[in-house]
Amino acid sequence: MPHPLFERHAATIERALAAIGDRGYWSAYSESPKAYGEGAVEAGKAAFDALIGKPFALDQPGTAGTVGREVSPFGMPLGIGYPKPDVDQLFTAVGAAEKEWRKAGPEAWVGVATEILHRINRQSFLFANAVMHTTGQAFMMAFQAGGPHAQDRGLEAIAYAWAEMKKIPATARWEKPQGKNEPLKMEKHFRIVPRGIGLVIGCCTFPTWNGFPGFFADLATGNAVVVKPHPQAILPLALTVRIAREVLAESGFDPNVVTLIAHEAADDVAQKLALRPEVRLIDFTGSAANGEWLEAHARQAQVYTEKSGVNQIVVDSADDFKGVARNVAFSLSLYTGQMCTAPQNIYVPADGIETADGHLTFDEVASGIAEGVQKLLGDPARAVEILGAVVNDGVMERLEKARRLGDIVLDTQAIAHPLYPQARIRTPLIVKLRAADLDQYLAEWFGPIAFVIATESTTQSLAIARDAVKTHGALTLSVYSRRQETIDQAIDVAEDAGVALSINLTGGVFVNQSAAFSDYHGTGANPAANAALTDAAFVASRFRVVQHRQHI
Amino acid sequence: MPHPLFERHAATIERALAAIGDRGYWSAYSESPKAYGEGAVEAGKAAFDALIGKPFALDQPGTAGTVGREVSPFGMPLGIGYPKPDVDQLFTAVGAAEKEWRKAGPEAWVGVATEILHRINRQSFLFANAVMHTTGQAFMMAFQAGGPHAQDRGLEAIAYAWAEMKKIPATARWEKPQGKNEPLKMEKHFRIVPRGIGLVIGCCTFPTWNGFPGFFADLATGNAVVVKPHPQAILPLALTVRIAREVLAESGFDPNVVTLIAHEAADDVAQKLALRPEVRLIDFTGSAANGEWLEAHARQAQVYTEKSGVNQIVVDSADDFKGVARNVAFSLSLYTGQMCTAPQNIYVPADGIETADGHLTFDEVASGIAEGVQKLLGDPARAVEILGAVVNDGVMERLEKARRLGDIVLDTQAIAHPLYPQARIRTPLIVKLRAADLDQYLAEWFGPIAFVIATESTTQSLAIARDAVKTHGALTLSVYSRRQETIDQAIDVAEDAGVALSINLTGGVFVNQSAAFSDYHGTGANPAANAALTDAAFVASRFRVVQHRQHI
Repeated sequence: MPHPLFERHAATIERALAAIGDRGYWSAYSESPKAYGEGAVEAGKAAFDALIGKPFALDQPGTAGTVGREVSPFGMPLGIGYPKPDVDQLFTAVGAAEKEWRKAGPEAWVGVATEILHRINRQSFLFANAVMHTTGQAFMMAFQAGGPHAQDRGLEAIAYAWAEMKKIPATARWEKPQGKNEPLKMEKHFRIVPRGIGLVIGCCTFPTWNGFPGFFADLATGNAVVVKPHPQAILPLALTVRIAREVLAESGFDPNVVTLIAHEAADDVAQKLALRPEVRLIDFTGSAANGEWLEAHARQAQVYTEKSGVNQIVVDSADDFKGVARNVAFSLSLYTGQMCTAPQNIYVPADGIETADGHLTFDEVASGIAEGVQKLLGDPARAVEILGAVVNDGVMERLEKARRLGDIVLDTQAIAHPLYPQARIRTPLIVKLRAADLDQYLAEWFGPIAFVIATESTTQSLAIARDAVKTHGALTLSVYSRRQETIDQAIDVAEDAGVALSINLTGGVFVNQSAAFSDYHGTGANPAANAALTDAAFVASRFRVVQHRQHI
Repeated sequence: MPHPLFERHAATIERALAAIGDRGYWSAYSESPKAYGEGAVEAGKAAFDALIGKPFALDQPGTAGTVGREVSPFGMPLGIGYPKPDVDQLFTAVGAAEKEWRKAGPEAWVGVATEILHRINRQSFLFANAVMHTTGQAFMMAFQAGGPHAQDRGLEAIAYAWAEMKKIPATARWEKPQGKNEPLKMEKHFRIVPRGIGLVIGCCTFPTWNGFPGFFADLATGNAVVVKPHPQAILPLALTVRIAREVLAESGFDPNVVTLIAHEAADDVAQKLALRPEVRLIDFTGSAANGEWLEAHARQAQVYTEKSGVNQIVVDSADDFKGVARNVAFSLSLYTGQMCTAPQNIYVPADGIETADGHLTFDEVASGIAEGVQKLLGDPARAVEILGAVVNDGVMERLEKARRLGDIVLDTQAIAHPLYPQARIRTPLIVKLRAADLDQYLAEWFGPIAFVIATESTTQSLAIARDAVKTHGALTLSVYSRRQETIDQAIDVAEDAGVALSINLTGGVFVNQSAAFSDYHGTGANPAANAALTDAAFVASRFRVVQHRQHI
């Protein structure tokens, strides 16, 4: 008999399988606040407020004191104390907990994982506040990207895991003919065996959106999961762990299948965890340096990383330049350019571009994009809802440094938040560079920093873009052109260098957006990420098949 | 329109997909010599003889002189000179060749790969001779394991690759509702992009059986393949490369998509190849030391390794001890114990075992197995057809060393081959050890060396077996017991430690045999191998998906 939680969610899983099969539009979790019913927004806020300034209730074993110094990018310290784990004790408990969980089988794993997601969904407005006040995302984005969109990414990972596991028969009858003699007959059993303990290392900008795929992929394939959030963004993943533990316990499993390891900034907890022999899977989102360290050193584990990269826009020509400027301006501004998919380098031929309204010089293109940003962010009340807040001091330092790199097309500006006077809010900086300034623009300038770069030609723009993706990595590439030949060349560059390409985005879709069940986020084919969200490769190595056979 | 070679083989691929779905018995390529028609055996021998003592015709670019000093384990030097490559020149040619191949798409890749296999199949008796006279396998085994069984493993890899690729739609239409407004509409294209160049590093015992899965998995996912055979077993893979190049050229592709790098023993060609940045996939079969070196150093590549391990038999009790002895004797003798799946350690309780015919002491169990070997190999003419020949000096040295480890239950014997007087043929050595002699029996003693180890109890036997698999790796585990409880414990050990288990094999199936489409060879879950032949994980990371999208 299938596990009751599998039965409860079977229709959702089936629909998700159809969605990853055709990769058209689908979402399991509504991004419309209305769908959550009257009072949901307020209830979420109240639940969040009730957590502030208190110890976070999580009955994990091996706890000694509390840890946590999160400060909202909108200004206030959260004052939440998380259990400070004795890591050895905690791993002992995890080791005991995983024994039964490993044997529960795919339907239980998938059923429990999906139930956890559904319960997280019901608390989407609590998560919205938690994401907002740890990452600096504005409220609506924190709700959508940190709530339903992240949940969709989690469900996508569960669906891929289920798709791979359900292909493997539990038993087989093997009959090999032996000429005139009786055939050889065997009965074989195939058991799906998880790899071990999965470690999920969260980031400070998208703790749920980037954390859920690995978390749910691990859980849905029978692995125990240890979650190590970024010290600045603990709350969203602590809530996740708490809900997961509730569902596990209610389903008769040891809740220590999912545990939280909160820790202080700048200690070596992540490295120590990553090297533990029990840890056989690691999902990481963060800096190139930390990701590369994991890939090089955590040799006992399968390591999935999303690191940094240099995202690029090649501007060749345009039918609707106003649409280009509007679209690019939004991509630069959304969450203060702090998305891993946000564009940084905008290549424009030095002698300008052709548009439906005639020729535009290089400077006109640059100032057109700058005007797009000014228009978008002209109203401070609206601007803060797009920008959110600066996530950390590093962004402020980079902004200051970037201002000295070249001629400023659009300077960054501080904007006051009507509700949060202490929030650091900055508009994008746009700086002009030349193609020769490779040393400057081929590094990642994480934050609201864009370069408009004068190239000899679109051919040179594409050549720089190709090399940049291959050498420095990228999550997105964007091209604007009226010429099919140029678009074909851009497709060729994208496929050769291994980066997702958006073509002539002038409407309501932006290069930094990546939709679950349809867009592959990252490719795994360039240095920015060694895996894609989500494909079969993301899940297929999280379990193994162990067989036994005997004569019948 | 599908590629013509895909159409030609579509029914075979479909049947292979069904086989990997139910994992019952199926074979695409007959293991019965009769199926190959009158005169096929003789034609294969003649084709082999025609190669002896001559340069091997292979029109690869960047060739400077010849290389190759293969000596048949049956005595005669092959005297075949293979093209000695200038590796840089060859890689330049491969880089040019892969450009069109990468774009050909899944149907062309799968069609070409399957056509290559089919042509290899038609030359199975040439391959039989080539495998026999490089590895030392006896003729019938060289034909079956090196021919149709290896071909089945290649087809299995192609089928898995096709199963993963065909799930990915080429295009999608994405329509996201926008309330009362027009939906957002996009057209998305998903291109399967191979990883780069695949390097296949062959071994000296099963060059085709262990080489084909990686070779065909790479090719079927659009990667170029550079084949580096073991210096003692070049010919079978050189033939493979030649056939592949013929099919590629006939299909309008640059033959340099598949190339051979033959080299001298003990040089550093393998290491240099493995570290080239163009090499993005490596399939390796060989020693633990070399495999671990690759895993640690070839960081730019996805590395699939099959290394060494300690295979074990737990003897608890038996209904039919004669059947046990007969079956184990065959497993120890087949190809002189030089199979990576051959058992080495046989754990028997010191106070003996219960059988249907009463109690047997430890010594009776040990001598019973020894008698089984003597009976099996009593007739020298039959013995040489089971044993084949010793593959290299290392086996001879280990045999001598192992004789001094403990009491000899059955000494190794030289047997003269009626046709090949210079062949080195040795029967299995069986030595008694105690459970405490861990330092001796927990290393791999590759060759016809078995230890019968006295344990306190079956519980101790299983505990040693579990630790051995986890720490030293294993490809096979075998248990003999009349008690369901003990069998259940053995299943638990197998699933916990991650090794395939055979239960009470007393008939015509042997623990060292692993059938394509049904048995997973290796699990990827213990140190003996980081991948299984074949599952989705073996193919899913050999390609990536790169998308482009635009508004409709």
